[in-house]
Amino acid sequence: MSGSGMRMSQLFVRTLRDDPADAEVTSHKLMVRAGLIRRVASGIYSWLPLGNRVLRNVGQIVREEMDEAGAQEVSLPIAQPLDLWKQSGRDEMYGDMMFRVQDRKDTWYALAPTAEEVVTTLVAGEYSSYKDLPVNLYQINWKYRDELRPRFGLLRAREFLMKDAYSFDADLAGLQASYDAMYAAYTKVFTRCGLTFRSVKAQSGEIGGDTSQEFMAVAAIGEDAFVWCEACDYAANTEAATRQQHAEVAMPEQPARERVHTPDMPGIDVVAQHLGTTADLLMKAIAFDVDGELVLALVPGDREVNEYAVIGAFPGQSVRLYTDADFAKRPDIPKGYIGPDFAGAATTIADSSIREPHGWVTGANEVDHHAQHMILGRDFTPTMWAEIALVEPGDLCPSCGRPLRIDRGIEVGHVFQLGDKYSRALGAVYTDDAGAEHPMVMGCYGIGVSRILSAIVEEHHDDGGIVWPAAVAPYQVHIVLLPGRGDTAVTVTAAAEELYAGLRSRGVDVLLDDRDASPGVKFADADLLGMPVQITVGAKGVGRGVIERKIRATGERDELDLATALDALTA
Amino acid sequence: MSGSGMRMSQLFVRTLRDDPADAEVTSHKLMVRAGLIRRVASGIYSWLPLGNRVLRNVGQIVREEMDEAGAQEVSLPIAQPLDLWKQSGRDEMYGDMMFRVQDRKDTWYALAPTAEEVVTTLVAGEYSSYKDLPVNLYQINWKYRDELRPRFGLLRAREFLMKDAYSFDADLAGLQASYDAMYAAYTKVFTRCGLTFRSVKAQSGEIGGDTSQEFMAVAAIGEDAFVWCEACDYAANTEAATRQQHAEVAMPEQPARERVHTPDMPGIDVVAQHLGTTADLLMKAIAFDVDGELVLALVPGDREVNEYAVIGAFPGQSVRLYTDADFAKRPDIPKGYIGPDFAGAATTIADSSIREPHGWVTGANEVDHHAQHMILGRDFTPTMWAEIALVEPGDLCPSCGRPLRIDRGIEVGHVFQLGDKYSRALGAVYTDDAGAEHPMVMGCYGIGVSRILSAIVEEHHDDGGIVWPAAVAPYQVHIVLLPGRGDTAVTVTAAAEELYAGLRSRGVDVLLDDRDASPGVKFADADLLGMPVQITVGAKGVGRGVIERKIRATGERDELDLATALDALTA
Repeated sequence: MSGSGMRMSQLFVRTLRDDPADAEVTSHKLMVRAGLIRRVASGIYSWLPLGNRVLRNVGQIVREEMDEAGAQEVSLPIAQPLDLWKQSGRDEMYGDMMFRVQDRKDTWYALAPTAEEVVTTLVAGEYSSYKDLPVNLYQINWKYRDELRPRFGLLRAREFLMKDAYSFDADLAGLQASYDAMYAAYTKVFTRCGLTFRSVKAQSGEIGGDTSQEFMAVAAIGEDAFVWCEACDYAANTEAATRQQHAEVAMPEQPARERVHTPDMPGIDVVAQHLGTTADLLMKAIAFDVDGELVLALVPGDREVNEYAVIGAFPGQSVRLYTDADFAKRPDIPKGYIGPDFAGAATTIADSSIREPHGWVTGANEVDHHAQHMILGRDFTPTMWAEIALVEPGDLCPSCGRPLRIDRGIEVGHVFQLGDKYSRALGAVYTDDAGAEHPMVMGCYGIGVSRILSAIVEEHHDDGGIVWPAAVAPYQVHIVLLPGRGDTAVTVTAAAEELYAGLRSRGVDVLLDDRDASPGVKFADADLLGMPVQITVGAKGVGRGVIERKIRATGERDELDLATALDALTA
Repeated sequence: MSGSGMRMSQLFVRTLRDDPADAEVTSHKLMVRAGLIRRVASGIYSWLPLGNRVLRNVGQIVREEMDEAGAQEVSLPIAQPLDLWKQSGRDEMYGDMMFRVQDRKDTWYALAPTAEEVVTTLVAGEYSSYKDLPVNLYQINWKYRDELRPRFGLLRAREFLMKDAYSFDADLAGLQASYDAMYAAYTKVFTRCGLTFRSVKAQSGEIGGDTSQEFMAVAAIGEDAFVWCEACDYAANTEAATRQQHAEVAMPEQPARERVHTPDMPGIDVVAQHLGTTADLLMKAIAFDVDGELVLALVPGDREVNEYAVIGAFPGQSVRLYTDADFAKRPDIPKGYIGPDFAGAATTIADSSIREPHGWVTGANEVDHHAQHMILGRDFTPTMWAEIALVEPGDLCPSCGRPLRIDRGIEVGHVFQLGDKYSRALGAVYTDDAGAEHPMVMGCYGIGVSRILSAIVEEHHDDGGIVWPAAVAPYQVHIVLLPGRGDTAVTVTAAAEELYAGLRSRGVDVLLDDRDASPGVKFADADLLGMPVQITVGAKGVGRGVIERKIRATGERDELDLATALDALTA
C-alpha cells in the first residue's frame, strides 16, 4: 500500500510563532501553534488536517488493540433518550455536567458523556442466555461534558473523542477476565502511543461501581499527583501509595531514656536543632479519634501521616484526626508533647520506619518536655504496625525496592468493574443453565482518545516544538526542500520530488515542504510540526550527491547518499 | 496484512426471521433482520458490529476518493455556536429541523446539520491571500436533523453519518474546477459502492446557492422520480428531462383538411375511437397565459405538457396554465376544441413530436367539432418549437438515442456551487495579487454515508436477504461449518478452522459460523447476512475431500478441492 503524501504548499495549516493567549499548558500551546486544532467555542475545537491525522492514528491503535482483545466495535448514538438516564439515576447525578437537548416533540435527549444506558439496553434486547455471554462492545465516538471551566485545550474539553467499551459477563469471575483483558489492551495502547504511564487504583467517579484503575500518563500538568516507580510498574495515588517496609533489625546499645526541657520551641525543626539532631530522628505521635478512643499514629518527625492509611487500618470504625475541640475535652493529653508511651492512648499505630535502629526523640507526655534515647521495645511498644507515613520521592518502591517518584498524571484511561448496577436498572438479565435469571455483570473501559494527544505532546516536545512518536505522527518523513536560487534549483527540486514519490511508493507517509519560504521558516516549521525524520534536500548537498537526515527526537544528523537514500530510509 | 476474523458464536448479532413492525421499506427490514442496526429512538440507531463494519467500509471508500481528489480531512465540531448560524441566516431557515442545545452558561449551540458556518470561519481565520487558495476540506461525521416524520430506517434518520466537503476558490473558474473534481470523485465513490446511480441537476435546498447536482441511486423507494438512461449517463428530474428531438421529415401526400362533428365525446380516447384512430395521432392544444396573452402548447394526444418546459421557453415572463376563470373571461376560445391554427392565440409553441409525418386530428376551433388531416406547414405552423412534452419511459435518450427509464431515486450525494453567500456573511476574504479584497468562492459537497447503506441494500438483495457488494461487505467469506454428529465432526471442524485461519492469513476478512445450530438456520443466516462468498464445510463434502462454494449474488455453486481451496479462493 502506498503512503500518504502532502505538500506544505497545499496543506491546510498556518503555524504560529507565538503562543495563543488562551493557552496555559505546553500541549495546548504547541497544538495550536502547529495548526493541529483551532478553538470554535469554549472547550470545543476544530481538528485541522495534521491534528485529524494524529487523532485517527491514535484511534486506529486503540481499535487494533480492542479488536485483538476480542471486543467488537459498534457505534452508539450521541443523542440518547434522557429517559434511559433517568432509569439509571444518572440524569440527576450528572446534573449540569450533561448537555440536554429537546426535539420538536418535546422529548429530551442527553448528549452522551458515556453510553452505559444505551449499550445495556442494546445487549438486554439481544441476549438472554448464559450461552450468549460474555460480550464486550466498544465504540470510538464524540462525547460531551458541559465542564464548568473548560481549559488546557483537549485536557478539559467539552467535546472530546473517547473510546468506551462495555463488557457483559455471567459472573464476577467472567468480569475479572474481561477486565484483565482490557487492562492488558490498555497497557499495549499507551505503550504504542509512546506514553510513560502507570495504572493506579482509583476511586470511581460518576460511573459508580467497585474496583477500578486509572491509567495516568506522567505529565507535569496532570490533574492529580501520584506515586510511581520508574523501574517497575508500581504506581498508586498518593493516598494509597506505600513504600518498602522497614525490616526489624537489631538495635545497637543505646543510652537510657533522658527527659529534656524544651520550652518555647514551636515545631519539630526547632526542637531538633536545640538537641543537636535532625527531624528524621524525632518522632511524631499524631492523635486520632477512633470510635471515641484516643489512638496515636507514630511517624518520624520529617514525615506526614497518611490519614487514609490510618482510616484503612481500622476497617468499619469511625476514624478522624483530633481537633482542638477534642483536645479541649481531654486536658490530660499534653498536646504537642505526646510520647509513644503515653498511657492515655488506647492504641498506638506505628509506621514501619519507626523500626529504624536508633533512639528517638519523642514527646515526654509533659508540656515543654521531650524524651531522648527512646528505644523501641525498651521504652515504647506500638500496639499496631501499618504503613501510615505519606510516601515521598526517593522512598523505596514496595515492589522492587528502587526509589519512587511522585509526579502529576493525566488520566488517559480508566477501567471499571461496574457489577450489576446498570443491568439491574435496565433489565439486562440472562438465564443460567438451571433456568434461573441473573443480572449480567458489567465492566466499562474508557480511553480519552483526544486527550491522549495532549499527553503525548506534554511528554514529547522540546523548545522547538512537538516530537511525535512514529506510531502516531501525522507523517513519518518531513522533506525540507531548499532549491536555492541558482541554476541548480531544478535539479534539487527534482531530487526532492523523486524522494517524495519514492518514499510514498514504499508505503511511507511523507510531508514535502515545497513552499516558497526561507530555510529558517522551513526548519522552524519542521521542528514545530515534529515529524520523526527530517530530510533536507538542498543545493549544497545535492551538489555533493547527498541529503541530510535529522532525527527529530535526538537531533542526530547524518548525510545520506542521494542514490541510496530511499533504501536507507526504508531499511 | 492479515484479514479480520469473527466467529458467529461470539459475534454480537441476533438475526430475526420476521420483519420488524416499524419498518416500511426493504432496506430497513433487512438491516434490522440482519442485526446491522437497532432503533434507540425515532430516527436514531445503534450500529451493531456488522452494520458498523459496512459503515466503516463505505466511509473508507469515501475517504480514499476525497483524498485522491485533493480534499483534506478535518474534523469539525458537532456542537456549533448558534451565533454562527444567526450570522449566516440559517438558524431561522432551518427552524424546527435543527436541534439546539443550551450550555450551563445559557449559550446556545446547534447540533450540526452541515458545517458551512464553522468551516468558513475556520478558513477565514487561516487564509487571506490568493496564494493560499484553493483548498478543499472534508469530514466524515455525525449530523443531525430533527425530521418531522423520521422513517425508512437510515433514509430519513435524525442522526446520520455524512461526508461533507467545502471548497474555497478565488474565482468562479476555480470553483468550477473544484466542483468538477468532486463530481468525478462522487462518481467513483458510488461506482465502488456498487450503486446504479445518475447525477441530476437539482434545485438546491436549505444550503442556498446556484448550480447543483444530486446523485440519485435508483431505487423503487426513492423520494423522487427521475428520468435516466441505462446506456449512457443522461439523467434529469422529470421536470427537466427531455428526449431525442424529432427531426423534420418529408410529409407523404395527405388528404385535405376535413371538419368532423364530435359531440358528447369527453376526452381524447373517445374522439380517437370515434374517428377510428389512436390518441397519439390526435393533437392537444393546451392554453397558457403568458404575460396576459393566450399561448397554445401543442403536444400529441397521448402526452402531457411539461409546464416547467413551457415556463422555461418564456424566460422572464409570467407563465401559467389557463384556469376556468380565464376561459370564462374569453368566450371566444372554444375550450376543448382549440386547434393549432386558432386565430386568437398570440403564440403557438409545439413539441418536436408534432413533426411526426402524418395528418393530425385537432380541435376545429368550434365546439363539438374536430379537424382531420391537419398537416404541419399546410394547415398550421407553430410560432415556436421547444421540447415541452413530459418524458415517458421508452422515449429516446437525448444523449445517445436509447430508450429512457423513469425510476425513483435515493439522493446519496449532492454537489453545490455556493458562491460567496457564506464567505461574505462570515468574512472569508482574500487579497488578490493587486491587493484588492474579494470574498472566497465556495462549493459544498455532501455524501450520505449511512444513507448509502440503505441504497445498497435496496439495490442488492433478494428474497433470502442482503447481497453485499464485495467492496462494502462486512466480511468477504462466510464459512458455514456443518460438523455433523458422527465421528468425523472433529475432522470437519479442523478443516473449517484451517480454512478460516488460512484465509485470514492471506488478508481475507472471514466470518465462521461455528454455532451449535441446524444447517437450515446457518444457511438462512448466511443468505440473510449476505457475504459475497459462502463456503460450506460439511461432513459429506470433507469425506470426499471437497467443500462447497456458493456465490451469494448469483447463487452459483461449485465444489473446491479441500487441498487447494485456499488458492482457489484467493486467486
